[in-house]
Amino acid sequence: MLTHSVEEGPLINRFRKLWAEIAGVGRDSGSGGYLRYALTEAERTLRGWFREQADARGMPVQQDGNGNLFAWWGDPDAGEAVLTGSHFDSVPHGGAYDGPLGIVGAFLAVDELRAAGVAPDRPIVVAAFVEEEGARFGVPCLGSRLLTGEIDADRAAGLRDRAGVSFADALGARPAGADPTLLGRFAAFVELHVEQGRALVDADAPVAVASAIWPHGRWRFDFTGEGNHAGTTRMADRRDPMLTYAFTVLAANKEARLRDAHATVGRVSVEPNATNAIPSRVTGWLDARAAEAETLHGLVEAVRAKATERAGRDGTALTCTPESATPLVAFDGGLAGRLVTLLDAPVLPTGAGHDAGVLAAHLPTAMLFVRNPTGVSHSPAESATDADCAAGVAALARVLEELACH
Amino acid sequence: MLTHSVEEGPLINRFRKLWAEIAGVGRDSGSGGYLRYALTEAERTLRGWFREQADARGMPVQQDGNGNLFAWWGDPDAGEAVLTGSHFDSVPHGGAYDGPLGIVGAFLAVDELRAAGVAPDRPIVVAAFVEEEGARFGVPCLGSRLLTGEIDADRAAGLRDRAGVSFADALGARPAGADPTLLGRFAAFVELHVEQGRALVDADAPVAVASAIWPHGRWRFDFTGEGNHAGTTRMADRRDPMLTYAFTVLAANKEARLRDAHATVGRVSVEPNATNAIPSRVTGWLDARAAEAETLHGLVEAVRAKATERAGRDGTALTCTPESATPLVAFDGGLAGRLVTLLDAPVLPTGAGHDAGVLAAHLPTAMLFVRNPTGVSHSPAESATDADCAAGVAALARVLEELACH
Repeated sequence: MLTHSVEEGPLINRFRKLWAEIAGVGRDSGSGGYLRYALTEAERTLRGWFREQADARGMPVQQDGNGNLFAWWGDPDAGEAVLTGSHFDSVPHGGAYDGPLGIVGAFLAVDELRAAGVAPDRPIVVAAFVEEEGARFGVPCLGSRLLTGEIDADRAAGLRDRAGVSFADALGARPAGADPTLLGRFAAFVELHVEQGRALVDADAPVAVASAIWPHGRWRFDFTGEGNHAGTTRMADRRDPMLTYAFTVLAANKEARLRDAHATVGRVSVEPNATNAIPSRVTGWLDARAAEAETLHGLVEAVRAKATERAGRDGTALTCTPESATPLVAFDGGLAGRLVTLLDAPVLPTGAGHDAGVLAAHLPTAMLFVRNPTGVSHSPAESATDADCAAGVAALARVLEELACH
Repeated sequence: MLTHSVEEGPLINRFRKLWAEIAGVGRDSGSGGYLRYALTEAERTLRGWFREQADARGMPVQQDGNGNLFAWWGDPDAGEAVLTGSHFDSVPHGGAYDGPLGIVGAFLAVDELRAAGVAPDRPIVVAAFVEEEGARFGVPCLGSRLLTGEIDADRAAGLRDRAGVSFADALGARPAGADPTLLGRFAAFVELHVEQGRALVDADAPVAVASAIWPHGRWRFDFTGEGNHAGTTRMADRRDPMLTYAFTVLAANKEARLRDAHATVGRVSVEPNATNAIPSRVTGWLDARAAEAETLHGLVEAVRAKATERAGRDGTALTCTPESATPLVAFDGGLAGRLVTLLDAPVLPTGAGHDAGVLAAHLPTAMLFVRNPTGVSHSPAESATDADCAAGVAALARVLEELACH
């Protein structure tokens, strides 16, 4: 059994050493952020590293039919396994911790248990899910959605990145889709993740247990107008979709503030995107989240209504397409309560989606958050101290012991 | 001497035939528009075609040290030459006529003069200027600005396209810059160009003479904020540069309307441009034009002031960088008057920049516009009938005869 007072110094050093092995992979020297898109060279390098780490620990690696990796510790026939892990892929110029902390931390937690002589009654499995961010193929949590059947395999196969490469081509095969047999082998899932806000700074605690994930989704707004010459077209004759787009960005911000919700337009695409041409088309992606599904629905409808009204005034046209939608995820209350008692940690909701949010509909699922001093995420400024990461590993090890031995 | 009543049928056929030779070069089958960026494969194909056309007419071709092409008809020592021509390069998904009409038309005008037995007293030179649109390297009229010394050769050499290729690398040499010797060999410049508005439709005339080009320029607005997670960052904690950008787009539109000026934000660049990340940086390019320099200055200053004020509220920062500025160009009044009398054509100002606008500061310069039924330009919808193009060629031939024989 693990001692309750973790030997922090050695664990911090072990964390630092293992973390350094991947710190340079996919790092952009200009921004200091990471470009680790799913199934690109950088992420494949990390997948290779995953296999090496599993091999070094004698943990057989299984790749499922959807591009997710699983490394097994213990007799696979010894009962339903406890699953842990996270993802390697990043948003463009994302931080170091979002994803990889949950995989590096999982291997280190296995080391902690072994060093303490813990012999689990059931297998412990470390996972690396593919395309969690949706930064390459547009649908977040693609690997876990495929595994659980929450996205159709044919639809996933045909998703394309900005260069036109399909997910099936990147994977090297059509994804297999729902795999209830594999899913049925897991008793629970626990994901260790960096916090993406400042609540743990305010609470003065290194680790928290998640309570819920806000309902959230992505909506694509396509504004079309009439491409024309910027110099010679009278203002009154224009049908400029950039105006409708700009109005919609401001409307989304205002409507979110009115509702204590979150709305962001962080991605835009313009045709032809030339300085001296009125655009023919502007596409913006709305990311919206709220504590209640009804609030989220009201927010998106209000933005859509305002955008449509403005399009009428601008002589432009709007189509609004939902690209993904995730309902409220309330993590297993019994499990969360058990972990809170075990770890004496605070409880937090989050606005961020995770593979844990997808898996929560199918098996008891929990998340642990590690304090982030900047509160910033999806940015090179994302941060966590080695000591807090080690505290996260120690917490995860205790949770795995609790779930796999009792 | 040319007859005043043009034989339109045969000239229309000759136009149609020569035009068809280049109609497919750089055409995007999806949009129907053209991707003919300076010194890319498509534009190089057209430059090769230029040399073939000159060779076929026994016109020696000279490339100056800046990438501009000149094809000479007549004894180069027979006095200062009459220069005509335009450019091959396009904006992204631009129309067929903007540029190429002035080069194809120039070769056909030479044919008209020869067929009529006209023997000019001075040389006639057909030019193809490089990078008129600024679509690849960001500075419009780059070739004519270099020739006239209006841009520093070192600055031009270092201009980079979106892939990071410098103008010097694309050209294969550092540009030579100002060439007063070459410039001194020209007595006048006349550019035939498609109209970029509907004034000739309203006037029911196929061809007009230009009076002036509005003062105009490009300003780059860099908005910086704090990249962060779209799901977890509270609205009140955000420093989102997309909001400041959106506000500035709407402010530019409003301020231009208030002044009877033109303002367009048609190009934007976002970092990291991810759906689930608040941007760290948004860059927008303001294209602004007005009939008076003072109006233009007031417009840009008003947009900058409103953007700065909004940046303060958004917690973002703004830098505004002028990328190009062209003062009012009043074409040579005596020359324009002579052409109006010769052609019995209406006179038009324009909001569009042209190489003729750059050259006008250095030698007597005129422009002829050909009617555009849609009034649309910098778009696949740009249009001109073969009959109107032939009328433009006939007008250009008469102008060249007038200038080269009298």
